Amino acid sequence: YDYDGPSMKTSVPGPRSQALTKQLGEIQNVGAVNFFCNYEESRGNYLVDVDNNRMLDVYTQISSIPIGYNHPALLKLMANPNHLSTLVNRPALGILPPENFPDKLTESLLSVSPSGMTRVQTMACGSCSNENAYKAMFIWYRNKERGHNMPSDEDVSTCMINKAPGCPDLSILSFNGGFHGRTMGCLATTHSKAIHKLDVPSFDWPMAPFPRLQYPLEEFTRENAQEEARCLEETEDVIVKWRQKGNPVAGIVIEPIQAEGGDNHASPDFFKGLRNIARKHGCAFHVDEVQTGGGATGKYWAHEHWGMDDPADIVSFSKKLLTGGYYHKDELQPYRIFNTWMGDPSKNLLLAEVLNVIRRENLLEEVTRSGKALLNGLYDLQAQYPGILSRARGQGTFCAIDICDDATRNSILLKARDKGVLLGGCGDRSIRFRPALIFKEYHVHIFLNIFNDVLAEH
Amino acid sequence: YDYDGPSMKTSVPGPRSQALTKQLGEIQNVGAVNFFCNYEESRGNYLVDVDNNRMLDVYTQISSIPIGYNHPALLKLMANPNHLSTLVNRPALGILPPENFPDKLTESLLSVSPSGMTRVQTMACGSCSNENAYKAMFIWYRNKERGHNMPSDEDVSTCMINKAPGCPDLSILSFNGGFHGRTMGCLATTHSKAIHKLDVPSFDWPMAPFPRLQYPLEEFTRENAQEEARCLEETEDVIVKWRQKGNPVAGIVIEPIQAEGGDNHASPDFFKGLRNIARKHGCAFHVDEVQTGGGATGKYWAHEHWGMDDPADIVSFSKKLLTGGYYHKDELQPYRIFNTWMGDPSKNLLLAEVLNVIRRENLLEEVTRSGKALLNGLYDLQAQYPGILSRARGQGTFCAIDICDDATRNSILLKARDKGVLLGGCGDRSIRFRPALIFKEYHVHIFLNIFNDVLAEH
Ligand code: FES
Repeated sequence: YDYDGPSMKTSVPGPRSQALTKQLGEIQNVGAVNFFCNYEESRGNYLVDVDNNRMLDVYTQISSIPIGYNHPALLKLMANPNHLSTLVNRPALGILPPENFPDKLTESLLSVSPSGMTRVQTMACGSCSNENAYKAMFIWYRNKERGHNMPSDEDVSTCMINKAPGCPDLSILSFNGGFHGRTMGCLATTHSKAIHKLDVPSFDWPMAPFPRLQYPLEEFTRENAQEEARCLEETEDVIVKWRQKGNPVAGIVIEPIQAEGGDNHASPDFFKGLRNIARKHGCAFHVDEVQTGGGATGKYWAHEHWGMDDPADIVSFSKKLLTGGYYHKDELQPYRIFNTWMGDPSKNLLLAEVLNVIRRENLLEEVTRSGKALLNGLYDLQAQYPGILSRARGQGTFCAIDICDDATRNSILLKARDKGVLLGGCGDRSIRFRPALIFKEYHVHIFLNIFNDVLAEH
Repeated sequence: YDYDGPSMKTSVPGPRSQALTKQLGEIQNVGAVNFFCNYEESRGNYLVDVDNNRMLDVYTQISSIPIGYNHPALLKLMANPNHLSTLVNRPALGILPPENFPDKLTESLLSVSPSGMTRVQTMACGSCSNENAYKAMFIWYRNKERGHNMPSDEDVSTCMINKAPGCPDLSILSFNGGFHGRTMGCLATTHSKAIHKLDVPSFDWPMAPFPRLQYPLEEFTRENAQEEARCLEETEDVIVKWRQKGNPVAGIVIEPIQAEGGDNHASPDFFKGLRNIARKHGCAFHVDEVQTGGGATGKYWAHEHWGMDDPADIVSFSKKLLTGGYYHKDELQPYRIFNTWMGDPSKNLLLAEVLNVIRRENLLEEVTRSGKALLNGLYDLQAQYPGILSRARGQGTFCAIDICDDATRNSILLKARDKGVLLGGCGDRSIRFRPALIFKEYHVHIFLNIFNDVLAEH
């Protein structure tokens, strides 16, 4: 059901997109709008716009479309009249769940539970997933400090006016270049771009350095190991420092691959070291898989590449999983985590079918295969255009490459788009590749050919 | 398509609900689960549970079901194959909106814009609506302070490490008893119950007193006016105090009727006074209509009862509107407000049809009529049971009544449920009534009869 290649009628945005952007501009800010889409006509790996341009989509709505546009299995699912009720009656899941809710969770989210985790809480997006994960870590930490679950009278009275001990001085440690969302708790742990954080009050929470590795990783093992050791050491220093100043670290949050911050990788040893530091200092360890989860690295969870039995206390997700939420260990029971909707059963329905398709079509193997072809292709191009490209890197199809500078990066993105390939940037001057899980080797070659043309013309 | 009355087979939760609660308990915390529902069999004002109990629903999933269960118009809409693509291809609305997005906004959200507001930003739930509204107010305030939109180099560098001036010391003023959500920014403005806030770090943001009025309002105009004057005066004091301590109030957030905090009302004069105080001190004025919006007060927005041309700078919504979001004045342009999904077009689709039904079936008039019957019925019961009931109050069907104490309130809620009426509590000892907009006078009488039975047995 896929198209056989890009097909461009106009430059992008075309006249119809421009007219609609003007129309929408009367209603809301359109500063970020790229173009308008015809989702009905989009299929598989191809996004069709309102000017009838058809682009190979290697960005997939900021990495959030798991199995391409209008997958027949999803269309069939949604056309099934048995599911109408799920679409029109959104429940308050925390108090009045539907009959099939435990079964749906079991066949969907629990069928891909991270190692050591049997409990999952659904949420509606990546931000509320992380916000509530942070809250669960704070509550867990305070219960540990108190030695029991019963808040004191002073806790109860002070929390009502935002004061300690009820609202304690506790922090979440995050990393330079990390991104965990834009609501105010998440934003205090986000350090990817100034534009995300400017003018918004924040918490006095610590930031540790994320390793800045040299690629390809195999060629720089010694240098990279040193860099990672330095970062682990500084992380521990920061934890001690924040404890000493009375604002202890209740939890550490980290992405297995820093995505918005520029696709920064680290080795399994680094994450193992960090997990141990968390244990040693009594901090919860939260792995944010909002962008990395769902199969793009060739495994359901990027942290599976670490090969650990006990990788985390909390793993949050959203995007490709269609519903938000987080897995957690028994000790981090979210007794007081609640909101009106607590997720959305219509998204759970879609997710269960997406997982069926992933299994039926062996998509994780496909991703591994396509990812190899993609990364090898990027290595070749980087050898061919050393003045423009560097630091090709990736896992599965979750790949990226650096461009010599920001302006060149942006011009390459626009030129590729006009030739029918939709890409996204990240970090200061990287291009990130975020295709759907149905991106096959021949899609890789279509992409590489066009990318090569763009670079050759440059 | 409504049932003709409650029908109870077991006490609630029945055996099937209990078994499912046990099953779900293996996967997640079930402390808040009331019972499991059969949403397929639920219709109109009646929620059916998995033990085949049919209850008149006067709580509607925490006030979030606008026109009852399985409304034929919504079933028809979702069965239309033209909408399949909207259900399976969730876009990143901020960058790649669908072709019909401007039209859908115009025919849905903009057709019920609050006075003075022509711009709307969709979001996915009440919390991200408020979080982003707060951010928009902070950005607006900082631009005003700077005199332009260009952050300094120091702003840019300090914000990356959560420090002023990039992450400035600015605050949002909220009210005692207010509820605005549970993500960390929202939570810092929530002051309804300790259990919501306990153990979560917060901001040093000011809280002002919300008037504690005597009901019925007509009988206590002088006392209530005094109480409101006192609260306005204290609000102004707090604004001055926080400015003096270097943490100025960028915005004031308030509910037109405090819902979670116990259904606390205030007069139009109070809100007019507050609006003036906001103007005088250069604070943005944010009216949170997440629970009050969508018609339950007999108008689309509760603040319409204030009769003001310029009621607010920002009005946020969610729940009955099915999508989250906020309206805002031109000056509060959210240039840097962004996230992956920015709402969900499948919810906009449902909302447009809900608004059609509201117009076609004159539901706001129905609400006004049913609301009068409900409030009069509560006045009668309160006269009959003065030892149990007091402070009946409401606007439209958005009504509440106080019970002598917490334990009695909870026992009444359970007894009413076993007799086939589903109600919710709020505040320390109130019962809140939150029926759908299709709750007619005869539903009021069904409810009053059962409520009377419960009280008589007490
Ligand atoms: S914060 Fe996640 S949906 Fe609103």
